[in-house]
Amino acid sequence: MGEMSRGARTDRQAAQELRRRCREGAFLYPTCGEVPGFVQANVVILPREFAFDFLLFCQRNPKPCPLLEVTEPGDPEPRVMAAGADLRTDLPRYRVFERGQFVAEPTDIQDLWRNDFVSFLLGCSFTFESALLAAGLGVRHLEERGPDGLVKNVPMYRTNIACRAAGPFAGPLVVSMRPYRAEQVPLAIRITGRFPGVHGAPVHLGDPGAIGIADLDRPDWGDAVTLRPGELPVFWACGVTPQAALLNALPPIAITHAPGHMFVCDVRDDELQRTPPSPEPDAFAP
Amino acid sequence: MGEMSRGARTDRQAAQELRRRCREGAFLYPTCGEVPGFVQANVVILPREFAFDFLLFCQRNPKPCPLLEVTEPGDPEPRVMAAGADLRTDLPRYRVFERGQFVAEPTDIQDLWRNDFVSFLLGCSFTFESALLAAGLGVRHLEERGPDGLVKNVPMYRTNIACRAAGPFAGPLVVSMRPYRAEQVPLAIRITGRFPGVHGAPVHLGDPGAIGIADLDRPDWGDAVTLRPGELPVFWACGVTPQAALLNALPPIAITHAPGHMFVCDVRDDELQRTPPSPEPDAFAP
Repeated sequence: MGEMSRGARTDRQAAQELRRRCREGAFLYPTCGEVPGFVQANVVILPREFAFDFLLFCQRNPKPCPLLEVTEPGDPEPRVMAAGADLRTDLPRYRVFERGQFVAEPTDIQDLWRNDFVSFLLGCSFTFESALLAAGLGVRHLEERGPDGLVKNVPMYRTNIACRAAGPFAGPLVVSMRPYRAEQVPLAIRITGRFPGVHGAPVHLGDPGAIGIADLDRPDWGDAVTLRPGELPVFWACGVTPQAALLNALPPIAITHAPGHMFVCDVRDDELQRTPPSPEPDAFAP
Repeated sequence: MGEMSRGARTDRQAAQELRRRCREGAFLYPTCGEVPGFVQANVVILPREFAFDFLLFCQRNPKPCPLLEVTEPGDPEPRVMAAGADLRTDLPRYRVFERGQFVAEPTDIQDLWRNDFVSFLLGCSFTFESALLAAGLGVRHLEERGPDGLVKNVPMYRTNIACRAAGPFAGPLVVSMRPYRAEQVPLAIRITGRFPGVHGAPVHLGDPGAIGIADLDRPDWGDAVTLRPGELPVFWACGVTPQAALLNALPPIAITHAPGHMFVCDVRDDELQRTPPSPEPDAFAP
């Protein structure tokens, strides 16, 4: 983890403060835009019996399933991403699934907690969106508003690319899409490629039909966004992929964050950036 | 995986040929120097009951435990690293451990195979040693011979750095050491840093005492090598780390490759190299 500046310490307190408000039931909202600059994680909680196969699914499909941390069975504390936090209380809202069926959306899962629960924290594209914005590349869904007046969610699509299965976990790669002009694409690729912990570089671009997407205006999740003349749709592996595989596996119980209601970590977005390459070619070295 | 040249195809046939000779009992020797340019993997085979914790140990300690592939329980075929191969027969020599005790060194494990066995293939520093040599950086243990006239094995040391534990898997970080002159160190670091799948960049350099190594001339495994005036010892995370953690966990049975008798894969060393960074700074991009 990188060195913290004074400003970063203040922000870390903001992350702790947001989690405290979640814990006390005072913050029950989507986390988009909260504690800017800090990592927000997808959360999947499963019985240990299913944990090996799910961990293997993530290991085999690292682009859509970038693991940030896996807890010890029964331990609700994510010691790397947010020491002292409690995954049973510190998310604003959860979703509970039984045999793949949605059954409840509680704001706390203390009553459901079991000593064999393993928690998986997975990277989320919020992290690289900050880096895209910082580089002057717009992020279309953050610029547009839906009919309800709210900022849009990124459009997500089921593809015809199968993930590598692991035990009962299987399913298609799901991608998110952001439009860029051809001359912006190289920078968008290079910036996001520095963040392998949050999906990394795109998996495809240009022709949606080539990966089984029939109509960009009808995303499977999230909101359609405008594709302007001269823009290419650019597709990144998406954190909905493991959720879809999770539900296909029909575990007796599974708990995830509610969509958009992420776990806010103590780690800064830039701490997930791969060490930047040194620019000089090797030929100049001894 | 990168594109294969005609020459590479010939080499891939060489990898398949070597595995065939292992399978037929005709090759029972250390694999160092065999099928140059192709990845050789550390192998750990464990009952499924222990597989989650071992996979978690690797996930938590990626520098010493770089996972190349994990097989489905009972499946002896490593479909990514060597499709069609059989991990029960295609290594020259195995070691069998019961409750952490070495019990046998067979050349085939078909009789021991169980339907709940999970195989882990882990990266080995042979891969980055090829890249160091190709860059004109010597690899000391390959240049020196022991009293038996044979090329030395890399010196390996137990450190005072604890790995992050996972269930019963715990132990110290083990490092390998290669000496370089100060002006060679940056290139050695940058080259190996491109291979995160085979331990990546060094973890330490300079003062052995700072990481709990009392005497460079007395490695815990392998052979001592000469440190010349002006050279620094450079330490890389080592694949003995997971083996030590494995035996600490006292599984009823565990099978590994015999030291130096690795699994030769169909994947080229350079295919494990991270996409090289593009040299121009971002400031030139739009």
